[in-house]
Parts: sequence; C-alpha cells; structure tokens
Amino acid sequence: MASSDGQGGSRRVTLTEVARRAGVSRSAASFALNGRTDLRISEETSARVRRAAEELGYSPNTTARTLRTGKSGTVALISDFIGTTSFANAMVRGALQTLRDADTLLYTVDTQGDPDVEAKLLQNLLDRDVDGFLYASMFTRQVDVPPLTRNAPLVLLNCASPDIPAVIPDERGAGETAAAALLDAGHRDAIWFVGSFPPGFTGAAVWNGWSPLALTERLDGIQARLAAAGTALAGTAPIETDWDVENGRAAVTRLLGSGARPSALICANDALAVGAYHALSVAALQVPEDVSVIGFDGSALTQAVLPRLTSVALPYEELGRIAAGMLLQGDPASRPHRVPMPLVPGASIASPAPRD
Amino acid sequence: MASSDGQGGSRRVTLTEVARRAGVSRSAASFALNGRTDLRISEETSARVRRAAEELGYSPNTTARTLRTGKSGTVALISDFIGTTSFANAMVRGALQTLRDADTLLYTVDTQGDPDVEAKLLQNLLDRDVDGFLYASMFTRQVDVPPLTRNAPLVLLNCASPDIPAVIPDERGAGETAAAALLDAGHRDAIWFVGSFPPGFTGAAVWNGWSPLALTERLDGIQARLAAAGTALAGTAPIETDWDVENGRAAVTRLLGSGARPSALICANDALAVGAYHALSVAALQVPEDVSVIGFDGSALTQAVLPRLTSVALPYEELGRIAAGMLLQGDPASRPHRVPMPLVPGASIASPAPRD
Repeated sequence: MASSDGQGGSRRVTLTEVARRAGVSRSAASFALNGRTDLRISEETSARVRRAAEELGYSPNTTARTLRTGKSGTVALISDFIGTTSFANAMVRGALQTLRDADTLLYTVDTQGDPDVEAKLLQNLLDRDVDGFLYASMFTRQVDVPPLTRNAPLVLLNCASPDIPAVIPDERGAGETAAAALLDAGHRDAIWFVGSFPPGFTGAAVWNGWSPLALTERLDGIQARLAAAGTALAGTAPIETDWDVENGRAAVTRLLGSGARPSALICANDALAVGAYHALSVAALQVPEDVSVIGFDGSALTQAVLPRLTSVALPYEELGRIAAGMLLQGDPASRPHRVPMPLVPGASIASPAPRD
Repeated sequence: MASSDGQGGSRRVTLTEVARRAGVSRSAASFALNGRTDLRISEETSARVRRAAEELGYSPNTTARTLRTGKSGTVALISDFIGTTSFANAMVRGALQTLRDADTLLYTVDTQGDPDVEAKLLQNLLDRDVDGFLYASMFTRQVDVPPLTRNAPLVLLNCASPDIPAVIPDERGAGETAAAALLDAGHRDAIWFVGSFPPGFTGAAVWNGWSPLALTERLDGIQARLAAAGTALAGTAPIETDWDVENGRAAVTRLLGSGARPSALICANDALAVGAYHALSVAALQVPEDVSVIGFDGSALTQAVLPRLTSVALPYEELGRIAAGMLLQGDPASRPHRVPMPLVPGASIASPAPRD
C-alpha cells in the first residue's frame, strides 16, 4: 500500500490528462470516475476513462489531495437536522465513506434551522481551515445558501440552489416508478394518493414531516405516468398535520368512510402507508388482496408491517457518496445531479380485487 | 435578556457559593442543578439549591463560560456510529440543546469504530482547540478511552470506563420495569424472554445490533423483579444473528412450534417485538388478548404495529443533555450517572388469557 501522505515524489496525474488519454472531455472523465449515471456516457466510454485512469495511476486518493493540498484534510457537513434526528443519516455515512477513502476527515454540525447558529458555525469552521462544505438538508428542498459557505468549495446535498453544484434524489422519477408498479399489476381507475401539504403550509423551511420538492415532484411523476397510460388518480386523501402513522390512519379512515373503494393507495411516505395499513385492517380489508399499497422512503418501517411494504427508496447513502466525490474532485455541472430512487419490492402490491 | 457574551463586569457566581448558601455539598448542588435523580437528594434540598442559585443569579450560561474561558466555544461529540446511522441520534440533539443554551457549538464526528480514524480525529480536534469531548457509543457498553481524549475535559455518553464521568441508561431498572408491567397485569408462570447474544458473540465492540450492557443488565433486572414476586422466566427464545424484525419472527415461530404456550413475551428490543407480532399473527394469536408483548428502546417501530407496542424507552435526548451539562459544569462523580428508562405504554399488555 502506498503511504497515505504520498511523499513519493512522483508527479501527480491530473484529471485533464486522464480525459485526454481517454479522448473525452474533462467533465465526462469526472462523471465516469464518480460513477454518475445521469449523464449519457456510454458504458464503453466510461470503461475507457477508467482504463486511462488506471494506466496513468490516477486514483481518487490522488484527486483527494487536490482539495487537501496545503490545507487541513477536513471537510464539514453542515445541515439543519440530519445529525440530530433519525432520518437521512445515511447521507452522512455515504459522505464519510467517500471522504475516508480519500483520507479526509468529516465534521458534522447541525444548525437546527437557526440562521444565527448557522453563521456562527460557518465562521467557526472557516477559522479552523476546513477545506470544503457539504451543505445538506434533511428534506429535499430549494435553499438560500448562506454567503459564508462561498469561502470554501461547496456542494449542496439533498437541496438545490441556482448555479451551485448539487445532488438531489430524482423525486419525479420516483413518482413515475410508483405509478408504474401499480399499472403493471393491473390497477387503473381506483388509484388514490394519500398525502398533502397540511393546511397553512407556506413552503417555508419547516422540517417536521414535509418536503416541498418531494411532494410536488412525486405527485408530478405519478400524474405523468398515469396520464401516459390514459388514466388519472381517482383522488387525493389529504392529511391534517404531519406525514406520520396517525395522520395516515386518519386520512384513509376518512377516505373509506366517504364510500370510496380504492384498489390501490400511493402514500406520500412510508409512515403514512403504515397508517393506511392500520385503517385498512380496522375496516377488515387485506393488503394486498383487497387494496394494494405503496410508499416512499424505503425506511425501516417497510419491514415492520405484514406483508412487507413496497416502497420507492431515498438513496441517502448514494447521495452522500456522490456529493463528497463532487467536493473532492470539483464538479463541472451547473444543474443538480439527480440520483435515481429505486423500487424496493415488498409484498403489498397485487392485482386489483374483482369489482362487483 | 442578558448579553450572551456577559461583558457586564459583575463578578461571576460560583457553584461553591450556591452550595454554601443552600447548606449542601458542592457535589449535591451540582447534581441538583443538573436535574439528576440518581443521588438521593430530597426534593426539598433540590428546591433549596435552585432557590439559592436563583437568589445569587447563578445560571447554566455562567457556568458554561467556565469551560469556555479563553477557549474556542466548541465541543466535539466523538462516537462510533451515532452520526451515520438512524439510531441514538437524539443523544446528539440533547447535547446540542444544552450546549446551545450555553452558547457553545458542537462538532459531531464518527469513527466508524476504526481506531486509526479515531486517533486522527482526536488530534485534528485538539489542534483546533476544542474545549472538551463527549465520547459516545451507539450501544451502551464498557469502553477503553483513547489516551488523546484526556487532553481536554471529557464525559462519556452511553458508555462507561472506570474513573471517568459517564452517563448511561439504567438498563437494570428497565428490566425491572418491564417485568413489573407484566406482573401487574397478572402474568406469572408463562413469561418468556426473546433475545440472546448470537452464537460466537465474544463481547467485543461490535455495533450491529447487540449491546453487552443492555442485554446483561436488562435480563438481570427482569430476573430480579420476577424473583421478588416468587416466580421466574419460563425460558428464553434465542435469536440467530441480529436483534431485528426477521430474527424476532423466526425466534417466536420456533418457540410456538416447540409447543410452548407463552402468556407474555419480553423482547430484548422493539425490532424483535415487531417480529414477535408477525409470528403471533401467522399463528392466529392476538396481541394482547392471547399473548402480551413488551419491548425495549421506545423507537418509532412501537407505532408501526397494531396495537401499539408497549416499550421501555432509551432516554437518548436526556442522556445527551445530562452529559453536556456535566461537561459544561465539571462533574464530581466517580460512578456512572444512570438515567431512568421510562415505560412508554402502548396497548400490547393485557391480563393473561384463561388456560384450559
């Protein structure tokens, strides 16, 4: 193994040299080496870049040193609530894995959404010579980036802002995936959506349970996919205060009480879906024989219910890995990088029950 | 509100002066002001200390400045996995709340259990003049504290080591609480424990699902409480690989298949209890009419099952708050501070079903 301090004296291979050898642009080389899949780089091109990197002895560790040169070998992940709540922590894990491979340490700090604390933390971190920032949000949303972050390399994680490198989940694609899973099972005219912004919600940066980008984009994707199949949602079961189990139970209880006969429920997150299970159980309806259910998030709740809940997962660890890689390598993209949200199959989807 | 920088010039009131005015020892005053309940300080004494503190204008913020004086106003929470997993994060939240009230910033760093990373992080943090360390473990356990932590004030959080101030959950009391809840409902001779160390477990600092102190002490408490009532566990349903839903389901399926007829199950954590629900459901046994169930942790899983699971909760936020308070004030105790684990009632305990 090479010394982690790389005092060997051989000249450092640059990304530009790898790109030149592979016959691709520097951006394409960066994307290929970051394992990113959103740009249309063919597998053949990607393999050529990796081969060129190998032949030249270019390694992530080497590029990591670009960020580190003469600096502290320390990066800070500054977030609203990720470090202090049991949600989205896998983003920190992903970032840590990538940074650790690059011999770079990670500090995590939470502002709890307080701009004063945020400014103090940023100044404190800059005073301590951190080499770069991952600016992260617990819920996917648009952010106004505090000016102090611009004093070091910056990548946004699970949030977006114009002209700043960013990594966010492909929420619209996730909506399409959820709708497709139900269409594929034969559902069509009695698919309901469970979830809404609670009354009075203004789109501000509240954290406890809603996510402007997620709801809007998931719903867009669902509607687009259903429209492409010549159908539409039968309706929406709105929730009252939060995206939690109790609100899911209440919303679906109201829906069933209204006389609606859903064949399938697309729930805005897993907690609402678990609440839907409870409401269906009380109404003596079986999942999936009587009603199919699908959620979003891919959380541990999917395994807590019987049968296991099918969900479209937030790829938190991958978001963290990719954002850290972009911070280490420098990112040439001007639009947010969208990470696909995978379907995690459970046993909560079946063919629609026969209607009488 | 006073300026957070406290430039007012009035002399700082010390804890010793508060103790003298209240007529108690400095330790007792410290315990009373930290809201600690493990020492046998009467409510009357505690009230006298608080009154003295108020009369003298002594405040946590004032004491916070003791740690900060001439330093960086920054504390680091160094843990194995807390920042990168969705477990125990409330400890960070509790610490952050207390530190924020004291105008002190918190860095969180995870070592992922790697001693090399740990040493690098500690040196990195010391180079940056952090004022103190909270050394934390995701699972309650004995730790060997790395020597570098001794270069700054140190409090252990959810772990223990001889002669170092530490805060841990009262796991033995939690076991007693669980047993008492079942005894109170009338259970006696058919109470089974679900959970064990998996085969080959050696007590090393593995993280993924077991907790040496928790299992041993919870079981001690259960057995002591049952013995005090003149009875004992009917037996243990061992688990195979981890304390998760699937292992809980498998363990209880085997138990029922062996012909055992439990009236109640004490599960080593909530995930195993959820698995127990699934096994009981498949066997057409109702919770709590046929079998009562209780878990430990007080996690979000308790709300995912119907009826809601009764659990003995890990007081994570309180652990974090108390540890941060001890770090700010200096802690005179030589034994670990034990924080009570509260019963969080669900609807999973009822009187035993009649036996034929």
